[in-house]
Amino acid sequence: MLILGIDPGTAITGYGLVDTRRGREVLITYGVITTPAEMEMPLRLFKIQSELSAIINEFKPEAAAVEDIFYHRNAKTVITVAQARGVALCTLAASGIKTAEYTPLQVKQAVVGYGGADKKQVQSMVKYILKLDHIPRPDDAADALAVAICHAHNLRHINI
Amino acid sequence: MLILGIDPGTAITGYGLVDTRRGREVLITYGVITTPAEMEMPLRLFKIQSELSAIINEFKPEAAAVEDIFYHRNAKTVITVAQARGVALCTLAASGIKTAEYTPLQVKQAVVGYGGADKKQVQSMVKYILKLDHIPRPDDAADALAVAICHAHNLRHINI
Repeated sequence: MLILGIDPGTAITGYGLVDTRRGREVLITYGVITTPAEMEMPLRLFKIQSELSAIINEFKPEAAAVEDIFYHRNAKTVITVAQARGVALCTLAASGIKTAEYTPLQVKQAVVGYGGADKKQVQSMVKYILKLDHIPRPDDAADALAVAICHAHNLRHINI
Repeated sequence: MLILGIDPGTAITGYGLVDTRRGREVLITYGVITTPAEMEMPLRLFKIQSELSAIINEFKPEAAAVEDIFYHRNAKTVITVAQARGVALCTLAASGIKTAEYTPLQVKQAVVGYGGADKKQVQSMVKYILKLDHIPRPDDAADALAVAICHAHNLRHINI
């Protein structure tokens, strides 16, 4: 099953596609959608929607997963991340893609095995699980792959 | 000029359309888009986008205005409001409608005349300015009309 993971943000939205084959995850692609700070907010959000739609149309994922927002101390950051997240969720629904949501704790538990894992440990496990030569960059793309892997693990447990 | 004001929210998004004629605002319509709590979040956001697009297509507003998010104490509320707000801004950009953003303070100053006004005073002024028999209900629709009036006042000052 082809799974699209998304790590939303207004300046940078990470995405990662993994396929599940014979009980393991295989990397298909990953990348980021970026928007310039000087662009007006509605246009930035529309750029995210347009580029995410293009990725969906190109790869036709069968499922998607998006991480819940970490309650940053900065309320302004929470708002801009949530606005981009809303656009991402809406775009996935518009494409008819069933979308799961996971807390950061669930992603860490699924990818590393325990919820106390730090960012570096999650990224190292993403590299290991997908048999990559290096940790995917930037962080937003690695985080998107982590949530896609989390969803793959979760679906496997449901199917057993 | 036909102006669409929006008060975004996941459960309820208020909208209000006012036209500016001979230096005053005239009510065209107002209402709310609602989504059920039991619906999955991506589908709720897509319902907001679909219904907002339908309103835009029907009335063809020439400009839009959306209020900035008040930093609620509850981070979860901020997130769900911001997700709906992101979808609204994106939908307006997708329709090519120039969209302004105003702080609650700016809306109060424009509609009532001073930033310390309370919600009831804003709503009473919306009723007075638009020459209505009663305060528009629910609050979300009245708030959407207030931000539309705020934008109308702002555009008038720019044009003078």
